[in-house]
Amino acid sequence: MSWVDGATDSLYSVHHLPYGVFSTKDDTSRRIGVRIGDQVLDVRALVAGSTCPGCTTCAALGADDLTPLLAAGPEAWSKVRGQLQEALTDTEYKASVSQLLTPVARVTMHMPFTPADYVDFYSSEHHAVNVGKIFRPDGEPLMPNWKHLPVGYHGRAGTLVPSGTDIVRPSGQRRTPEGEPVFGPCARLDIEAEVGFVVGAPSPMGSSVSPDGFTEHVFGVVLVNDWSARDIQAWEYQPLGPFLAKSFATSIGTWVTPLEALAAARVPAPVQEPAVLPYLKESDRYGYDLTLSVKWNDTEVSRPPFGQMYWTPAQQLAHLTVNGAALRPGDFYASGTVSGPEKDQRGSFLELTWGGSEPVTLADGSIRTFLVDGDTVTISATAPGPRGVTIGLGEVTGRILPAAG
Amino acid sequence: MSWVDGATDSLYSVHHLPYGVFSTKDDTSRRIGVRIGDQVLDVRALVAGSTCPGCTTCAALGADDLTPLLAAGPEAWSKVRGQLQEALTDTEYKASVSQLLTPVARVTMHMPFTPADYVDFYSSEHHAVNVGKIFRPDGEPLMPNWKHLPVGYHGRAGTLVPSGTDIVRPSGQRRTPEGEPVFGPCARLDIEAEVGFVVGAPSPMGSSVSPDGFTEHVFGVVLVNDWSARDIQAWEYQPLGPFLAKSFATSIGTWVTPLEALAAARVPAPVQEPAVLPYLKESDRYGYDLTLSVKWNDTEVSRPPFGQMYWTPAQQLAHLTVNGAALRPGDFYASGTVSGPEKDQRGSFLELTWGGSEPVTLADGSIRTFLVDGDTVTISATAPGPRGVTIGLGEVTGRILPAAG
Repeated sequence: MSWVDGATDSLYSVHHLPYGVFSTKDDTSRRIGVRIGDQVLDVRALVAGSTCPGCTTCAALGADDLTPLLAAGPEAWSKVRGQLQEALTDTEYKASVSQLLTPVARVTMHMPFTPADYVDFYSSEHHAVNVGKIFRPDGEPLMPNWKHLPVGYHGRAGTLVPSGTDIVRPSGQRRTPEGEPVFGPCARLDIEAEVGFVVGAPSPMGSSVSPDGFTEHVFGVVLVNDWSARDIQAWEYQPLGPFLAKSFATSIGTWVTPLEALAAARVPAPVQEPAVLPYLKESDRYGYDLTLSVKWNDTEVSRPPFGQMYWTPAQQLAHLTVNGAALRPGDFYASGTVSGPEKDQRGSFLELTWGGSEPVTLADGSIRTFLVDGDTVTISATAPGPRGVTIGLGEVTGRILPAAG
Repeated sequence: MSWVDGATDSLYSVHHLPYGVFSTKDDTSRRIGVRIGDQVLDVRALVAGSTCPGCTTCAALGADDLTPLLAAGPEAWSKVRGQLQEALTDTEYKASVSQLLTPVARVTMHMPFTPADYVDFYSSEHHAVNVGKIFRPDGEPLMPNWKHLPVGYHGRAGTLVPSGTDIVRPSGQRRTPEGEPVFGPCARLDIEAEVGFVVGAPSPMGSSVSPDGFTEHVFGVVLVNDWSARDIQAWEYQPLGPFLAKSFATSIGTWVTPLEALAAARVPAPVQEPAVLPYLKESDRYGYDLTLSVKWNDTEVSRPPFGQMYWTPAQQLAHLTVNGAALRPGDFYASGTVSGPEKDQRGSFLELTWGGSEPVTLADGSIRTFLVDGDTVTISATAPGPRGVTIGLGEVTGRILPAAG
């Protein structure tokens, strides 16, 4: 139990301890912080007072983002986490460490790490079936490959932005109902509620990571909003996939929850039928029992369940590397839209409004199909932690600004 | 005319001056070099002797790769190029500068810049038509969007490798002719001969770059071999595009030719019909008259012409940013396979052997459809320079190693 007031009963107890990068008004330099209750612990300051000269892990903790810590690997992650838990529970440290806490309301959060490559998957069967039915009403909803491999593609790492960043409505090329290509602001601007995985430990080119290597390479989890311009996407995506419909911005949470904090959230993942090829077989197959919440302005419109995704993050990592693709610290991959079987569990507005044909009414009585300028979307999530506590995965939020003149 | 012996009549005259990153046996640190004739000028050493304290451009020239110079922008690029030309032509400098030359045969070349995001386009009409006919023999060869926008997708920046790197044959999932998914080494390993563009000056998120802004943002050109696993690609690519079929490795040339050196190589690009939307219209529409050469082991099998690509690099950059996607120094985009109208101008083996149905005979009498282990592919190119000189764009080469055990 932490000596920090209010931490124990919060979503940020000592069993959680997510990492982020923050600055304050008084000290605008970016530094690593750990969230405990309503407070942020200044990890750089904590390390500066330590007696561990020449230690690479200490140097990583003093860096201006998490990338060096990501590179340090699972032993270092576990050791640091243990030491932070000790500092925040043993009252012996209270007097000194409490000096290093700042209320979360008084900090500015930044990108937690420097993104290397970004891959987006497509791993919810409910989502893939919904999208298939909406876009190809006369065909089979799932493509023939969908149950054999976790379909994915590379996105634009340079436009990953931290939660809170305003999103300018993208402009682009789309087709009128008459089939005429036209240029203008996106008219079907959507979200995708996803869960993202931050790769830490690298793997060299020419080798692959098995599903069981997942916890050796992945550091932690953040929430993702993969903003999507559906009208641009529908016109551009054949045959090489989504491009400008996605590359204008992807928002990610600023608090990275370590995988270790989610050990109690593991749940059996769905049985896969037909059986997958051996390189995708896990010796212990599990998902994470996260429940997402999607708020459209002030209205919660969906609660997508992450635990029953067809493809697990361990399978995604194995697939991503099976061709010998290297992993770098800061590589990032997202689950794809999280949608459950129920209507109020759909993780995109495309699905929630069934391609715009079934509008949603918000709490203020206004009616929506896709996003209008000024709208804010906030995705949050909780998960079961150890000893009955609940873990909060922070939030990813963004507001839509009008298209650039 | 340069005082360096043999430079004037070479592909690397003073009108060219490509940049790279090199090291030597005696000094293994990576530093910027400029190629002149058969020599490499050590730019870091040149700058170290200059009297320009506190100058950011001088600092950029002393860096361990080109990324800071890319960020410096077009005025700095032009100024540095002028100074290098002066140092290599004015005999006043010969005594001192000739000390800083090393024969190109005695240097090791490295990645010239740190790749940020990597985008691959699909801009040769001949290539797109060929691929369409091979993969979709019963349909229209070009997709409806193809003449309205430069189709492209994001690739994996982390597996861009410098020319000379061995390429391990990727393994992955493909489908047997009977429709059964199987795992194993790629059986249809191919190349794509392309031309790549290195972005220098950044542009902020939320803004776009017009086609006429091309020379303000793009620093230079390198050759690209976009290795492609056709069997993996055919099975995975729907609906989100190529992924593992490409992400195992993409080789790039180690000498970056500045755009300025290609001013004399500009040629009118094909008239586009139907007319493109205004955001894709150039006030001065041109391609670059590069002639590529593809050597399969010792046999030149193709000479793809780059000058008549349907979509120009200026249009590609405008499209890439029209949705507000930011540009970072080190962003990189490639043309897509360069194929001309003739059979001996096709830039991939898929096209050259028409999907494997028309094998190629090499000079040693051996027969090929796709790559076999031990094969080497070398792509080179030349372009007209000023005053009748010819410019050589170096080469990009790679050898196939057997799949990992």
